[in-house]
Amino acid sequence: MIQQLIQKIQKTKAPVCVGLDPMLNYIPEHILRESFQKFGETLEGAADGIWNFNREIIDHTWDLIPCVKPQIAMYEQFGLEGLKIYEKTVRYCQEKGLLVIGDAKRGDIGSTSAAYATAHLGKIKVGSNLCTAFNTDFLTVNPYLGTDGIKPFVDVCRAEDKGLFVLVKTSNPSSGEFQDRKIDGTPLYELVADKVVEWGADCMSGEYSNVGAVVGATYPEMSAILRKRMPHTYFLVPGYGAQGATAEDLKPCFNQDGLGAIVNSSRGIIAAYKQEKYAMFGPENFAEASRQAVIDMAKDINSVL
Amino acid sequence: MIQQLIQKIQKTKAPVCVGLDPMLNYIPEHILRESFQKFGETLEGAADGIWNFNREIIDHTWDLIPCVKPQIAMYEQFGLEGLKIYEKTVRYCQEKGLLVIGDAKRGDIGSTSAAYATAHLGKIKVGSNLCTAFNTDFLTVNPYLGTDGIKPFVDVCRAEDKGLFVLVKTSNPSSGEFQDRKIDGTPLYELVADKVVEWGADCMSGEYSNVGAVVGATYPEMSAILRKRMPHTYFLVPGYGAQGATAEDLKPCFNQDGLGAIVNSSRGIIAAYKQEKYAMFGPENFAEASRQAVIDMAKDINSVL
Repeated sequence: MIQQLIQKIQKTKAPVCVGLDPMLNYIPEHILRESFQKFGETLEGAADGIWNFNREIIDHTWDLIPCVKPQIAMYEQFGLEGLKIYEKTVRYCQEKGLLVIGDAKRGDIGSTSAAYATAHLGKIKVGSNLCTAFNTDFLTVNPYLGTDGIKPFVDVCRAEDKGLFVLVKTSNPSSGEFQDRKIDGTPLYELVADKVVEWGADCMSGEYSNVGAVVGATYPEMSAILRKRMPHTYFLVPGYGAQGATAEDLKPCFNQDGLGAIVNSSRGIIAAYKQEKYAMFGPENFAEASRQAVIDMAKDINSVL
Repeated sequence: MIQQLIQKIQKTKAPVCVGLDPMLNYIPEHILRESFQKFGETLEGAADGIWNFNREIIDHTWDLIPCVKPQIAMYEQFGLEGLKIYEKTVRYCQEKGLLVIGDAKRGDIGSTSAAYATAHLGKIKVGSNLCTAFNTDFLTVNPYLGTDGIKPFVDVCRAEDKGLFVLVKTSNPSSGEFQDRKIDGTPLYELVADKVVEWGADCMSGEYSNVGAVVGATYPEMSAILRKRMPHTYFLVPGYGAQGATAEDLKPCFNQDGLGAIVNSSRGIIAAYKQEKYAMFGPENFAEASRQAVIDMAKDINSVL
């Protein structure tokens, strides 16, 4: 699976992932109004608005990018109606040839992680049929429970040729609270990194493993350390743009070959029309603003590679 | 919210939580057969089987217990059809007067955790309406991202009088891989415990905080340390029964007042009819076997308090 991602990155020349994390206040009024007229000011109405918003953004960006990353929390908050749109968005993106990283940060004890792995990456046997649930291409997972909480995800990746990104060093302000604490002189995030390498060793696909890592762009010195410590691990990099990291901050996430990292931007792209820089598009042309923001982001990143 | 749980524990004299974690192979054949006949060997058919299974177990145990804990992964693996049954199970249990602990172990950066908190504990504004999504009473959460990943959950607990259980020391075999590593002489799980106390300090309800901790019964020495370190934190305790912990192992999770812990059992109760001990009930009377298993579990725990 990681090879498919690399090929798409090389083809588009854009190590860019569009974060499909719709908040209601990102959605232009004319879209929400139409959905509320159809379904009322209900969860169904909100979900319909999100779907129309997502679809226009995908239609205006799919040819420029290798992948998208829907954050499932943004759909879960609208309950079943929201999750229907999560599923529909995953399918629609895959039909357009995009790879989909389900950003769900799941993780639990072994038997439960196995159920999450089935839910998001695998197949489940029902009677004599094999069924799929959300069926994304990659999934983000949380390592706090250790090897037996991650192993079931790795097993499904191997069986189904899927990929993972394990949280190593996250982009948020308090990520250091536990992740940076030193254990025998080594910060926890580096120990987690070593385990990610170990978990991914059996899942290599060319130069890189199907087991990747989440490494926030907001801590570039740590990205540099991790890049050296895990040369064959692909990084999913949040934190660019709205969270404050610049292209220069991204540089240490990449290997010498210009590969090794896929950079996510959510707000910065899907709500681009709200920025002064793209205000001339106006709310009606929000998706064109998103397209321009993708072009600018790819150019910005390529300028430092 | 924690006071409601305590009152129900005192009323039922059972610090017992039934883990509604249905796996297809726990469900007696006669139930699955009927569902497959109605809906085919599909996700819908499987979900219908789970619903009929859950409902019978709830009907046979609700008067004996304070709460249930559906593990959302077991529903997610059946996609939207499974999640419909998760929602239906939550509602049904609440109608029976049970408190519901959503076992979802969510956790992310601030804005995303806020969306998860809304999804599972809060309300979302859609136009001029306030809507709820899954609306459980408690939620389990993962602390790896630190304070700003937990704060939004705590805020919703305060606003809506709900509760949390934060992963501190989990029950699985490899939980020690990161959680037991020492930082300046103190294991990570104790540092997480200290943060849980800090996060919960603003959320007190009587003697206990609405912010609780997940503490596995499988490591009784560590439970004892944590019990002392966080006297006003309620423990959600997995690991009893099928995972190997005995009543004696549970003892250190409780305070002198006989409170402080709610013990979960999933397989041991919902699939009791598969154990030799309860085999005389037979698959047709699986829910009566579950009832007997709850009675036995409460007695077993009370014998050490």
